[in-house]
Amino acid sequence: MTTLNYLTTTHFDFGITQRLGKELSRFGVERPLFITDEGVRAAGLLDKVLGNGGIETPSVFDQTPPNPTQQAVMAALEHYRADGCDGVVCVGGGSPIDLGKAVALLAGSGGDLERYDPMQGGAKHITKVAPLLAIPTTAGTGSEVSMGFVIVMDDGRKATFASPKLVPKVALCDPELTLGLPAHLTAATGMDAIAHCIEAVLSPVVNPPAEGVGLDGLWRAWRNIQRAVEDGSDREARWHMMMASTEGAMAFVKGLGAVHAMSHAAGRLPDLKLHHGTLNAVLLPAVLRFNKPVAEEKMERLAQAMGLPKDADLAEEIERMNASLKLPATLGEMGVTEAHLDDLVYYAVKDLAGRTNPRQASAEDYRALFEQAL
Amino acid sequence: MTTLNYLTTTHFDFGITQRLGKELSRFGVERPLFITDEGVRAAGLLDKVLGNGGIETPSVFDQTPPNPTQQAVMAALEHYRADGCDGVVCVGGGSPIDLGKAVALLAGSGGDLERYDPMQGGAKHITKVAPLLAIPTTAGTGSEVSMGFVIVMDDGRKATFASPKLVPKVALCDPELTLGLPAHLTAATGMDAIAHCIEAVLSPVVNPPAEGVGLDGLWRAWRNIQRAVEDGSDREARWHMMMASTEGAMAFVKGLGAVHAMSHAAGRLPDLKLHHGTLNAVLLPAVLRFNKPVAEEKMERLAQAMGLPKDADLAEEIERMNASLKLPATLGEMGVTEAHLDDLVYYAVKDLAGRTNPRQASAEDYRALFEQAL
Repeated sequence: MTTLNYLTTTHFDFGITQRLGKELSRFGVERPLFITDEGVRAAGLLDKVLGNGGIETPSVFDQTPPNPTQQAVMAALEHYRADGCDGVVCVGGGSPIDLGKAVALLAGSGGDLERYDPMQGGAKHITKVAPLLAIPTTAGTGSEVSMGFVIVMDDGRKATFASPKLVPKVALCDPELTLGLPAHLTAATGMDAIAHCIEAVLSPVVNPPAEGVGLDGLWRAWRNIQRAVEDGSDREARWHMMMASTEGAMAFVKGLGAVHAMSHAAGRLPDLKLHHGTLNAVLLPAVLRFNKPVAEEKMERLAQAMGLPKDADLAEEIERMNASLKLPATLGEMGVTEAHLDDLVYYAVKDLAGRTNPRQASAEDYRALFEQAL
Repeated sequence: MTTLNYLTTTHFDFGITQRLGKELSRFGVERPLFITDEGVRAAGLLDKVLGNGGIETPSVFDQTPPNPTQQAVMAALEHYRADGCDGVVCVGGGSPIDLGKAVALLAGSGGDLERYDPMQGGAKHITKVAPLLAIPTTAGTGSEVSMGFVIVMDDGRKATFASPKLVPKVALCDPELTLGLPAHLTAATGMDAIAHCIEAVLSPVVNPPAEGVGLDGLWRAWRNIQRAVEDGSDREARWHMMMASTEGAMAFVKGLGAVHAMSHAAGRLPDLKLHHGTLNAVLLPAVLRFNKPVAEEKMERLAQAMGLPKDADLAEEIERMNASLKLPATLGEMGVTEAHLDDLVYYAVKDLAGRTNPRQASAEDYRALFEQAL
């Protein structure tokens, strides 16, 4: 068993969810709200966690949408209050964890989400956050150790909220929960972890330890993603992918980049409901080509972590990997069309993640990048 | 400026000691005891820190010995109490920082050091630690972010104490303070940082993020140590060496290895007063040869971080680096003789650091390793 002591205390091992009861009492939580989604529930993962944790009559909110909305946050919060809950346990991929963070924030600090909008300096209004535990069931988001969450707001924006207070107190990372994850989701979430590592390393924010963590996560994920996709029961590959996911999020305390600015913009399109990890995988090559001229030394380190020659063309390598994982090659294949372009550019330019891209991207740059990815 | 949020909050930049007053008030410290040594004081570094921090009538203990002793801890503690101090600021290399940790521990939890001996499960007796700030003036120890300290006890052992409660609350890492460090100390402390990174990566404890941090520290230190030794005023090289030092200590939450078990044993020889970093530099090659058969993949990653071919002979590379830095090649050159051997082996076997060496070393192994290094 590995205990990592960084911002979140992360307990990491097969079967570690057996620790849930102990962690809940450590934080004095008697009536946690389990926040999950229907897919996680149908896969039997919520029952597994509840069984491991010895929880018999749980309070559950399972209506998390794929890209969590402000409306869903309010519905879960109502459930939390009506049921007299005193803490949140998120069980799922990035969506339930993000939704759970929003609920814990509003349960602790009151008001509505707009009040905490980081674009308006809202993080300073966060006084208290309800006890928050996260149990990831995918290996990609890393939201279990990150200080941010992303919600599609009523006004249509995909807004990123961030504060160290939003970091879950404890993450229980149990690779066991990912053994049954279907190949296409293993591929898409795995590429999400890879995108986190790559963008965090490329961010110009100076934080060498976080950079080291990102490179290690990339080293691990690049060597194991194909194994995990081809044979979901490969426990070693699952372990490494979950670790890479956690490391990706530890690394992106440095910030992310244009890939995420663009995938946030595309992820909010209500007619398409696109998967965040898949979007990142598809967008990476164009952004890597765009960033190359300003990040040569870092590109070499990334290549080295991936076991490639120093001067490898990373964009091509990602394209090859996407193809081998049967991920789409273009946004076009995902249903995005020229008609979406203005809207995508509008939201990408405003997204927080783009601020730490190594090369500042203008609206024209984003348009060109989206066109390449189409 | 870089703020790293791991166990310690580390503020890292040229001139960052100007933040001292602010940090003291943040922790409600009105009368800190500045713990340093005569060398640091003579070099004007204490005055620089006091000036930057706007502290006019400081309480100072400057009698830290090169390898801090239990006796010195008690002397400083008496000073702390007599002067009505309410916190500790360590200014110096590993010795004043380690001494300061011991003083903060006893000031907070009472009793004497034996009570907290980790070999006797003493860490559980630590109830409170006085507010502790660390300002390193060398780039090597990393003690400013580590949870351990090492004291030569009255009974002759060099004992390692460790607890997350001993991590300084804040480290102010100001590479400015190292610009005047003489070449031989730059070399010896720099090799200390390199030894931390290498041993932490090789430790079998599973902690990938810490491993990534160690590899990044090694990458940075190996590229900059010669520059910093040859031209002490090279600000960029100084920055990287101090960062590598901090990263080395973040990495060794994984534990260290036989190099440290041996250098702790040799560092306690009262007749020789040997420098910890120099010892590590001299001992690394023999231990790397000893560990090689059990750590091939990790040796490859170390080589890669050092910019060497995968199959490079790391022991030879360290020997070459030591020579180019004008460090001794053998323990014999440092004054150690055959007559010390029994004593060295006796203490090395008992040392805590050896427990996380990737290959368990018996008394005979330690004897052979010391003989090689002689």
